[in-house]
Amino acid sequence: MSKTMEALREIFGCRVSASLAERYCYASDASQVQGMPDYVVRPENTQEVSWLLRFCSEHQIPVTPRGAGTGLAGGASPVRGGVVLDMSGMCKIVEIDIGNLQVIVQPGVVADKLNLALRPHGFFFPPDPGSSAMCTIGGMISNNSSGMRSVKYGTTKNYLLDLEVVLADGRIIRTGSKVLKSSAGYDLTRLFAGAEGTLGVITEAGLKMAPLPRSRKLVLTCFQDAETAGRAVISVFSAGITPSACEILDRLTCRVLKSCDPNVAVPDDGDVILFEVDGQESSTEEEALQIAEICRQQALSVRVADSKKEMDEIWAARKLVGAAISRLDPSKTRIYMGEDVGVPISRIPSLIKKVQQISAKLDIPAMKFGHIGDGNLHVALFIDVMDDVQWQKLRLAADRIHRAALEMGGTVSSEHGIGQARAEYLPEQMGEETLQVMRSIKRAIDPANILNPGKLAL
Amino acid sequence: MSKTMEALREIFGCRVSASLAERYCYASDASQVQGMPDYVVRPENTQEVSWLLRFCSEHQIPVTPRGAGTGLAGGASPVRGGVVLDMSGMCKIVEIDIGNLQVIVQPGVVADKLNLALRPHGFFFPPDPGSSAMCTIGGMISNNSSGMRSVKYGTTKNYLLDLEVVLADGRIIRTGSKVLKSSAGYDLTRLFAGAEGTLGVITEAGLKMAPLPRSRKLVLTCFQDAETAGRAVISVFSAGITPSACEILDRLTCRVLKSCDPNVAVPDDGDVILFEVDGQESSTEEEALQIAEICRQQALSVRVADSKKEMDEIWAARKLVGAAISRLDPSKTRIYMGEDVGVPISRIPSLIKKVQQISAKLDIPAMKFGHIGDGNLHVALFIDVMDDVQWQKLRLAADRIHRAALEMGGTVSSEHGIGQARAEYLPEQMGEETLQVMRSIKRAIDPANILNPGKLAL
Repeated sequence: MSKTMEALREIFGCRVSASLAERYCYASDASQVQGMPDYVVRPENTQEVSWLLRFCSEHQIPVTPRGAGTGLAGGASPVRGGVVLDMSGMCKIVEIDIGNLQVIVQPGVVADKLNLALRPHGFFFPPDPGSSAMCTIGGMISNNSSGMRSVKYGTTKNYLLDLEVVLADGRIIRTGSKVLKSSAGYDLTRLFAGAEGTLGVITEAGLKMAPLPRSRKLVLTCFQDAETAGRAVISVFSAGITPSACEILDRLTCRVLKSCDPNVAVPDDGDVILFEVDGQESSTEEEALQIAEICRQQALSVRVADSKKEMDEIWAARKLVGAAISRLDPSKTRIYMGEDVGVPISRIPSLIKKVQQISAKLDIPAMKFGHIGDGNLHVALFIDVMDDVQWQKLRLAADRIHRAALEMGGTVSSEHGIGQARAEYLPEQMGEETLQVMRSIKRAIDPANILNPGKLAL
Repeated sequence: MSKTMEALREIFGCRVSASLAERYCYASDASQVQGMPDYVVRPENTQEVSWLLRFCSEHQIPVTPRGAGTGLAGGASPVRGGVVLDMSGMCKIVEIDIGNLQVIVQPGVVADKLNLALRPHGFFFPPDPGSSAMCTIGGMISNNSSGMRSVKYGTTKNYLLDLEVVLADGRIIRTGSKVLKSSAGYDLTRLFAGAEGTLGVITEAGLKMAPLPRSRKLVLTCFQDAETAGRAVISVFSAGITPSACEILDRLTCRVLKSCDPNVAVPDDGDVILFEVDGQESSTEEEALQIAEICRQQALSVRVADSKKEMDEIWAARKLVGAAISRLDPSKTRIYMGEDVGVPISRIPSLIKKVQQISAKLDIPAMKFGHIGDGNLHVALFIDVMDDVQWQKLRLAADRIHRAALEMGGTVSSEHGIGQARAEYLPEQMGEETLQVMRSIKRAIDPANILNPGKLAL
């Protein structure tokens, strides 16, 4: 047994492993980015994390923190070896503090489980990534996750009150408190959030909760093209309505939706926008009618969903759609690349057109759907994974999609993160001098560069 | 003329001054913190700011950026001399971009003027500090300002999409873009926001707008004590309602309100909570009735305001109340100290009681009012400014109020900032090790420490 393993064993016992089988399981997240860890460590408390980071700093061992491994950019892939720190075992809901409108959690708590626990109290934690059934709060914080409802409710960052963070040298700090509002010093909470584990390891978080809306309504609209659809979206906002979701689905996406569930009554003769509103019963009815009225002038069709049952069916199908292309062509698999670009919302129609051109030129089918209300377009590219030529074309398509978004003043990731998969675009997106500021912060906080090295173009 | 003055003149012409009269005007903001600048400089564009910061870095001259000087913690007071950089002249609204739900402004734009320009388009910039008629967007960003409506709408930070920042060495960076949502690297936007000018000078900002609500309703409730009032507030949130304002006013505040405007029908026999809801006409009616229903069980009185006119009168009086104590006692003046503490919202009743004790013991009258929905209590202390003993007692009272908030897990500033006035409390509030992280970031970004030195316990 190596000296390192001996030292780790002493602290972690059977919660450290160097077996090939186990290391292989932790070699990647849900992306194509691969690495091979030397050790897998499963801490049970903050003190253990602190001990480990101090040890790894002293011995220059890279540490890659990991939640559920649902990330799509290689953020949790140990590309420089070293330790994968599996935080999923620290999964207690520490305190539901209704009187202060907040909940304290360990980072391994799964998003849906948190919401299950909050529901009886009339509250919820709004960020809703597609992976909410599996992903952990720690991962959501580290990637600033969101989802369909961020157009109204914002991203994970909007709900962070306090983080307990272990720094690279083992020091344990808190970045906030139970106070809902504070203007006192640098916003370290939002600096560590979205840092993808490159500045510290989050070991506890205080989260603000939101009141559960009493009612939801869904308006299904269909337009002859994405430009018209985009104009309708702006008209809705200008009318004083903030939808709780505002999703665009292209023709191909609608076809796949129907193949998932033939009962789903989604139009398929144009670009569809699903507007959801939530709140009081009275206002959702009023707003749904207003949206219908606004869209009717420009739309091919407009319909308010009949019932909660229909709404649930549509959203369930929408949630599955990214993975469901194989219903149309069983020989093809969706690969997550170029899947999370964002642009100023007025550019969404141009981006959709551009993706269509890229898809046609390279003969790689592309489903286009996403959160038009905040400019986030999800592109689903599909290939026969046994075909090397298609892999090459896929990489080329993803690269062109990323560059198209940047040319439109956009981002290569709206909600999935940069990790290693998208790191090459960061200098262009941020500008070299802004990146230098990031790098100087990284050096100041993690001078030995042990925390998740090889990510974020640092 | 000194060599420094010669160099400044060459760039800024008559927009630099070293006259005693002018320097004296820039010696302080709206707080008690004093300093004396050597030069006052009024830049007209980003390049000039860049030139100045490079020059000051090379010559080790402190630079204190300043907006309208409405700050209450000495953030804009040049405590180490050097240059006061008056940004109020860079006051253009660069672009109102409705199609992307945002507005681009220079930092000197005054908050109310921005909202005047957005209103015809059906949008607004929600943060609403009491000084909105004068304060600048740059100052609001640097202090993460907010106000009554942050309980629903959040703080300035929630509306920042992009900042143009000049670093200490003159480099110009941008921290974001026109994209509404991005998960791509460190959140430099929110790091520079709230940094009170210690990390860079903000020269342009992209701000997200919110749709103007169509309707507002106000519910006036009165409780026998603050504890009962606090419980009612939590019941309202738990019922799925997020009020757009949720203000507590103690008996003394209500008396002063009535002296400002005898027509204002605010109860004065207990602790008053003003609940405002906004949104669609139908939902505000529904929610106002629900709030009334919930509060009726525990309140001494509950009433929904009759008309928009009555609402406007009450809010106008509420906005004036902090400065209006002299109506009760013309010999006394409000001094802003200990005026912005925050605690977890369940502790607001205890904090009110504690402030009452401090006020009684030191015989310094205290009005207590504030944003109970986010735990922010404004305390207005009043003294005869000609009386040295009262000044001593005032300082003691403010110190005890700050310490009381900290003992309850709170903050010495919820929305006004730390500056120099509250810097001594930061080590206790944040913890020494968290403060060390702040200091290492400051050193990394402004190694010569020229930017607003002497603030934030850096």
